[in-house]
Amino acid sequence: MKKISKILVANRGEIALRVMRSAKEMGIKTVAIYSEADRLALHIRYADEAVCVGGPKSADSYLNINKILEVCKQLNVDAIHPGYGFLSENANFAQAAAAANIIFIGPEPASIRLMGSKLAAKAAVANYNIPMVPGTDTAITNIDEAKKIAAQVGFPILIKASAGGGGKGMRIVSEAASFEEQMQLAVSEAISAFGDGAVFIEKYIGSPRHIEIQVLGDTHGNIVHLFERECSIQRRHQKVIEEAPSSVLTPALRAQMGQCAVDVARACNYVGAGTVEFLLDENLNFYFLEMNTRLQVEHPVTEQITGLDLVKEQIKIAQGEPLAFGQEDVKISGHALELRVYAEDPLNNFLPDIGRLTTYKRPQGLGVRVDDGFEEGMEVPIYYDPMIAKLITYGHNRQEAIDRMIRAIDEYQITGVQTTLAFGKFVMEHEAFRSGNFDTKFIQNYFGPESLAPAINTDEEQLAAVLAAFFYEQNKPQAAGTASENNYNTGSNWKKNRLF
Amino acid sequence: MKKISKILVANRGEIALRVMRSAKEMGIKTVAIYSEADRLALHIRYADEAVCVGGPKSADSYLNINKILEVCKQLNVDAIHPGYGFLSENANFAQAAAAANIIFIGPEPASIRLMGSKLAAKAAVANYNIPMVPGTDTAITNIDEAKKIAAQVGFPILIKASAGGGGKGMRIVSEAASFEEQMQLAVSEAISAFGDGAVFIEKYIGSPRHIEIQVLGDTHGNIVHLFERECSIQRRHQKVIEEAPSSVLTPALRAQMGQCAVDVARACNYVGAGTVEFLLDENLNFYFLEMNTRLQVEHPVTEQITGLDLVKEQIKIAQGEPLAFGQEDVKISGHALELRVYAEDPLNNFLPDIGRLTTYKRPQGLGVRVDDGFEEGMEVPIYYDPMIAKLITYGHNRQEAIDRMIRAIDEYQITGVQTTLAFGKFVMEHEAFRSGNFDTKFIQNYFGPESLAPAINTDEEQLAAVLAAFFYEQNKPQAAGTASENNYNTGSNWKKNRLF
Repeated sequence: MKKISKILVANRGEIALRVMRSAKEMGIKTVAIYSEADRLALHIRYADEAVCVGGPKSADSYLNINKILEVCKQLNVDAIHPGYGFLSENANFAQAAAAANIIFIGPEPASIRLMGSKLAAKAAVANYNIPMVPGTDTAITNIDEAKKIAAQVGFPILIKASAGGGGKGMRIVSEAASFEEQMQLAVSEAISAFGDGAVFIEKYIGSPRHIEIQVLGDTHGNIVHLFERECSIQRRHQKVIEEAPSSVLTPALRAQMGQCAVDVARACNYVGAGTVEFLLDENLNFYFLEMNTRLQVEHPVTEQITGLDLVKEQIKIAQGEPLAFGQEDVKISGHALELRVYAEDPLNNFLPDIGRLTTYKRPQGLGVRVDDGFEEGMEVPIYYDPMIAKLITYGHNRQEAIDRMIRAIDEYQITGVQTTLAFGKFVMEHEAFRSGNFDTKFIQNYFGPESLAPAINTDEEQLAAVLAAFFYEQNKPQAAGTASENNYNTGSNWKKNRLF
Repeated sequence: MKKISKILVANRGEIALRVMRSAKEMGIKTVAIYSEADRLALHIRYADEAVCVGGPKSADSYLNINKILEVCKQLNVDAIHPGYGFLSENANFAQAAAAANIIFIGPEPASIRLMGSKLAAKAAVANYNIPMVPGTDTAITNIDEAKKIAAQVGFPILIKASAGGGGKGMRIVSEAASFEEQMQLAVSEAISAFGDGAVFIEKYIGSPRHIEIQVLGDTHGNIVHLFERECSIQRRHQKVIEEAPSSVLTPALRAQMGQCAVDVARACNYVGAGTVEFLLDENLNFYFLEMNTRLQVEHPVTEQITGLDLVKEQIKIAQGEPLAFGQEDVKISGHALELRVYAEDPLNNFLPDIGRLTTYKRPQGLGVRVDDGFEEGMEVPIYYDPMIAKLITYGHNRQEAIDRMIRAIDEYQITGVQTTLAFGKFVMEHEAFRSGNFDTKFIQNYFGPESLAPAINTDEEQLAAVLAAFFYEQNKPQAAGTASENNYNTGSNWKKNRLF
C-alpha cells in the first residue's frame, strides 16, 4: 500500500486533535472538517487545512458522508481517520471511502458489519474457544425446556422477556427450587406487558466488572493484544473512569483473555486497532460481550502503560506496514488512569450541563496528560457529547496513579459549567476503588442517594435533558453579577427549575 | 527518622511547583517563600502557605538563610527542599537547618563540602578506580618535568596558565615534536599576561560529550544509579538540550560509568539524589568531572525513562526510608528529551530577553510534559534565571522523542519575548543531532555565524546584559501598535541598541 501523506480527520474535539498530533509527528498533513457550531474549535486551527461541512446537527456535518468524501477528493486526501463515534463504525462509510480510492484508517467493512451484529459475531467466533454468557440463543416459552437450560447454566439465572428491554421484563432467580414459579410469572408478565410470552434465559452475573482487551492487527495476518483496560466505573452504562492494567487480573488470566481477544479479532479478519469487551464475574470467569471496531475513548491508558502511540500504529497498519513487534515484545510498565471530564452535574444524575468555560486551567507535571479540545473562554456546545477533556495520570504503580489523579483533579480549574471532576475525586478516595474491590455497580452502591433517582437510560432522554437545559438557558432571568459568576451560577439555577 | 508532614520549598518558578506537586501527591503540606518581585508567581498560589521573605534581589530573599529558617520555625515546617540553584549546594544552609532540627532534603553538609572542592573530591575518590582527565594536579614551570608528564598523558595536550581562566592562556599541542617550543611560549606568555609562569598540563579532549549519571543513596548505605543523561548541547557552557539515554553509550559502557558514579557517591557517603558528571571523548573514554549534590534541572528525562518520581525518592530518603528497589530493578524504557525554553534570543548569542508573555499556550498530548512557572500575561522577571519552561518529550525510541519534540515546539505559542524554541527545532532537525554524532561544540560548529560573536562568559556579563535590556525597556520610545505588538517588538528593538 502507498505511504499516506494527507489525512482527513472525520471528527471533532479532543480526538481530532489527538489524531492530528500523531499525524504531524509522522510528517503527514492534516485536514479538519467542522460544523457551523464548531467554527471556533481548536481542531480547525491545528489542522493544515479545514473545511466546514455543514450545520450544527451531526447528520448535516460529521455524519455527512457525501460531503466528507467530496472534501477528500477536492483536497487530495489519501486517508480518513474516523476517530470514535460519528462514522467510525459505519461500514457503508468505510466502503464508500474505499470505492473513492481513499484509505479508511480502520478495519475492512466486512469486519465492521460482522462485529456490528451480536448474532453474526457469536457465529463467527464459534470455531474458537470464546466463553459466552451461558444461556439460550433463541427465545423460548416451554417451561420444561427452560428448566433444562437453567440447570445447565446454573443459578443465579436471569429471565429476560424477548420483547422487553432497558431493564424491563427481567427477573432474577437465585435457586432451582423457585425457578418453575418464577418462569411462569415471567411468561405471564411478558404476555400481559408485551403481548409476547417468549423469554431468554441466561446466567445472571451479579457483580460484573467491565474488562476490555486492546488488539492490533496488520494486513499481513499478525495480531497482538496490548493487555486490558478496566472500565467498571460507569454511569448510565457509560464509562467515566478507566484504568490499565486492571487491579483484579492475574498474569495467567490476562494471558488467557488476551488470547481470546486475539482469537475474536482473527475470527473477523481484523485489521487495525480494535477492542474486545468482556464481562468478568466475581469468580474471575470472563464472558465475551462484543468487539468495538475502532479506537476507544479510553485508549490513552493503554498508550501510557505500553509506551505505544496507538494512532501511529493505526496509520502504519493502514499503510500496509507489518507490526514492528510481536506479542512477546509488549510489556506492561506502570499504571494509568483516565477520568472523563464531562460537563455534567454528578449530584443531579450526571445531567449534561452547558455554558462557557470562564476559567479553564489544566493540571501539569510528571505523569499527567490532558487530551481536550477546549481553551479558556470557549463554549461547551449543546450539539455533541459533553466531554470537556480526558484527564490521564500515569504512575509507577496503581497507588501512585491514584494519588496523582487526586493531585491533578485538585489542580484542574474549571468554572462556568458543572463537571465530573469532584466525582472523580470521590471515586479516587473511596476505599472500594482504592482496594480494587468494586464492580459496575459502584455508583449505584456508593455514590449517595442522588444516584437512586431515575437514571437517563436512552440517548433520547439525554438529548431531552440537554435541550431542556438549553431552552432554560435561553429564557432564564438575567442575574446580576459578573459574566463569570453569572455563568457559574447558571449550572445550579436551571437545575432547580428543570422539567424532569 | 520522622515522617515529613510539611515541606518549605526554598525556591521559585518551575522547580518550586514541581516539588510541591510531588509533596501534594504524598499528602505533605507545602510552604512557599517568595520575593517581592514574585508576588504574582504561581508557586505562591500552589502552596498551602506562602511567606514573602524579602526584596527582589536573591541575596535578600531566596538566599536569606536566617529569614527562611525563621519562617520554618513559625510555620512548624519539618523539612526544606532547596530545589536547584540558590541554597541547594550551600553546606552552611544545610547545617543551619539541621541545627534548627529541620530536615534538609539533600545530602549531609560534609558531602556537599567535599564535592564542592575539586581537589578534595579528587582525593576522596582516589581509593576507587575513577578515571580522571590525565594531567598535573599542581602547577609546574619546569620544562623537563612538563615533557615527562606530557609523554605520560599522551597527545593532544592542553597547557593552561595557572593564573588564567575562561579560555585565556590556553594552548593546544597536538604532537610531541612541538611540545617544548609550545611549552616555552606558554610559560613566557603566562608571565607577561599574568605575572606567573606556572601552568597545568592535561589531556586535551577535542570532541567532548557531557554525560552525567543520576544516583540515589539512602541512609542505609544503599546506592543505585538511574543511568545517564547526555547534556552536550550547551551555550555559554550551560546546558540547553538534554536527553536520556545517550545515543552513544553501549550497555557495557553504561554499566561501567554507572558503577563509577555509584563509587563516587560512596566515596562521599552520599545520601539523596545527586549527579556525577563525566566527559566522554570520541574514543568513548570517560573522565570524572564533578558531582552535583542536588536535583538537576534536567532530572525529568530520567523520570520519564525510569518511571520514577525523583522528588518523591528524595523525600522518602529524607524520611529515612530505604530505597524500595535495587540496581537490577531499574530499567530504561523509551527515550526522553528536554529543551530548556529560555527567554533568550538565540540569534543574538542567546542574550537574555525580558517582557510579558502576551501569548502563552503550552503543547499537550501523548508524551509531552511542560514544567514551568508561568501563565499567559505574566512577566518574565529580570532578577532571576530567564528560563520560562522545560519542554520534555518522551517516545518509544529516540526518533519518536525527536519527532514529538518538533511537534511540541510547533504547538507551543509564546509571544512577548524571544525564546529558545526555534533554536530547539533547529537542533532537532539537524543531521548531526539526529544521527547522534555531535559533541559540546554543536552550537559553535553548526549554529550559524551569529554564534561566532563574543560569548557571554561570566555571570557578571550576563547580569550586565539583562540590566542593559531592562534600562532600555524603561526608557525606550513608545511605539504605536497594540500592547502585544509593542511587547513583541521590544525584543528586537533593544538589541539593535545594545551596549555590547
